[in-house]
Amino acid sequence: MSHAPIDILKQRHTAIRRSLAEQHLDALVVTAPANILYLTNFTGSSAIVILTADRVEFITDFRYVTSIRDMQRAWPELMLTIVEGAYDATLVERLGGLSLTRIGIEAAHLTVSRHHWIEAALAARPGTMSAPVSLIATEGIVERARVRKDDYEIATLREAARRLSTVATKVLADVRVGMSEGELALAIDWRIRNGGFSRSAFETIVASGPNGALPHARPGERRLVEGDLVVLDFGGVYASYCVDLTRTVSIGPPTARAREVYGAVLEAHDRAIAAVRPGASRLDIDQAARDTLGRYGLGEAFGHGTGHGLGIDVHEDPRITRRRPDIDTRDEAVEAGMVFTIEPGAYLADWGGVRIEDDVLVTADGVEVLTNVTTELMEI
Amino acid sequence: MSHAPIDILKQRHTAIRRSLAEQHLDALVVTAPANILYLTNFTGSSAIVILTADRVEFITDFRYVTSIRDMQRAWPELMLTIVEGAYDATLVERLGGLSLTRIGIEAAHLTVSRHHWIEAALAARPGTMSAPVSLIATEGIVERARVRKDDYEIATLREAARRLSTVATKVLADVRVGMSEGELALAIDWRIRNGGFSRSAFETIVASGPNGALPHARPGERRLVEGDLVVLDFGGVYASYCVDLTRTVSIGPPTARAREVYGAVLEAHDRAIAAVRPGASRLDIDQAARDTLGRYGLGEAFGHGTGHGLGIDVHEDPRITRRRPDIDTRDEAVEAGMVFTIEPGAYLADWGGVRIEDDVLVTADGVEVLTNVTTELMEI
Repeated sequence: MSHAPIDILKQRHTAIRRSLAEQHLDALVVTAPANILYLTNFTGSSAIVILTADRVEFITDFRYVTSIRDMQRAWPELMLTIVEGAYDATLVERLGGLSLTRIGIEAAHLTVSRHHWIEAALAARPGTMSAPVSLIATEGIVERARVRKDDYEIATLREAARRLSTVATKVLADVRVGMSEGELALAIDWRIRNGGFSRSAFETIVASGPNGALPHARPGERRLVEGDLVVLDFGGVYASYCVDLTRTVSIGPPTARAREVYGAVLEAHDRAIAAVRPGASRLDIDQAARDTLGRYGLGEAFGHGTGHGLGIDVHEDPRITRRRPDIDTRDEAVEAGMVFTIEPGAYLADWGGVRIEDDVLVTADGVEVLTNVTTELMEI
Repeated sequence: MSHAPIDILKQRHTAIRRSLAEQHLDALVVTAPANILYLTNFTGSSAIVILTADRVEFITDFRYVTSIRDMQRAWPELMLTIVEGAYDATLVERLGGLSLTRIGIEAAHLTVSRHHWIEAALAARPGTMSAPVSLIATEGIVERARVRKDDYEIATLREAARRLSTVATKVLADVRVGMSEGELALAIDWRIRNGGFSRSAFETIVASGPNGALPHARPGERRLVEGDLVVLDFGGVYASYCVDLTRTVSIGPPTARAREVYGAVLEAHDRAIAAVRPGASRLDIDQAARDTLGRYGLGEAFGHGTGHGLGIDVHEDPRITRRRPDIDTRDEAVEAGMVFTIEPGAYLADWGGVRIEDDVLVTADGVEVLTNVTTELMEI
């Protein structure tokens, strides 16, 4: 269970119902686990939610009955159906009882198999000749609501970032010459769990020396040696919300080139954060980082976007990415309540890499950096 | 990367091509990560594979170029395309170059959104008026091949089970009265990682005292006290393959009732394993456990199936479940090479639970139990 108060959940339902009304939908069948959690606090692995103009129906199996009964005590209107056979059969049965005609499905999550099955089963229901039901593919209705965080989410992310900063400070003190990447990754995961996180938010990255040139390197058996830069990228899930942080450290004194690349990435990081305010284009925030690295001749060395939204998913909207009109033309402004990473980097083949990442909240008049760990180049 | 030898990968492709020919398909677009891993050893998070009668095309992005180049050294025929914009746009472009007419998609994995987009983009390709392309929804083509493990997989699962048994023996020695469930779960996850596993295969279960009555309880703050039975259920991913094990221990001397329930579950476990041999129905293996528990008046207390297949996924076919003609009529026999869990349990509300789980391989003439940990009721 997540712990958003019931009145916050109801605000979320109201926002979704507004979208349903705009799209002339009688209901939304919610199948994405992150969206179900957002609407109900449920953190189990199997459930379906039907949201209509006046009800929330919850479908799950015997494994989760106890937790749903707890939920119902605070929220008696929640309608619960226990699956006896197959989930989608129960879904069709419940939909049949609600006299709906236009039912939205989450096209980005529902599989082709399930969609076919549900469509066929709805058509085959007895006694439905008079009211044809259609499934309407919808895109991102709940996800769009999730982009701007509400007060409960902001408080949770702030606390999560505070805890991750404490973890990071301890992690920086754990690094020793001679450790393998895998050993250090395990020590980081242990710190994360001991820091009150239910789990790491993604596979921890420890990329040392030349391995640092791969932005998504997996920690291996390579041991940290004098002269390495080491990229440490890790995150945790706290009360169902994800935070994410990267620091790059030097084993022994950094070379002049290491200082130079580090300085450029740090300046890109700082300028991108300085560009964050309500109304700023997400593409301009990325551009602030990209232009800075370009001035140091590191434009080509920065192969990924500047940041990504954080929330129930570790990668969600907004995407703080470069202008690429061929694949993504939406030049949206960021708004107060959005939480995302700022994580420029520079990756140089056969040399290594630097990345510095913090988590920021767009406030009413600017930006709040949620994570708080030194950004000076630490020498181990 | 997983490490199946290239000739094993080619055997797997041959099996899939046989299914494609039977279904008159010119190609299969593989989008499920576990299926991609099975066909190519690739363990990254983003890729698409196109398998045709005479080629394997691999689509991924810059993050994984280095690992694919390594793969190509051993397997030069592998065709690599790097995504510059969006994955599905690159997919459509590649499909367009291959003069295919009937293209299978994995309906249980592809989302409605992606299916619509790919279908529309294929139809809109210039110069394709003469050769209409159709996407055919397929079900479980690669999954069916994965059910019977090949020699590489059996060797990997055997080693994984050996390592998990070592972990389990250490875990049993870690249990102390007064620890919280969460602390013990963290200690178990640490043992798993130190045992050579890349990660836990699922969220570790430590369910003590009355919490043991919930088969999927999450470890919480409850501390182990004298008189508790404690269900410990954990697994690990070793070289991309999952193994899974459960033991139940007693804190202090078990009550007479605890001994009785434990004895019944152990007998159910032993009888189910004794029922495993090539040609045995998966439903009969379940029945062997269920009948035993029924004889002890615990039939109602066993609310889940007896087991599930293990492999790249921690839950795959075969499902060792009860006969339920209303939802699942397939009475398939298990075959040599299948690997699955045997995990009967008994769950009694307000009292607690017992579960005992091992991993078994169906051999040419019977069964090999891959895990090896005492099944006596341990008293801590």
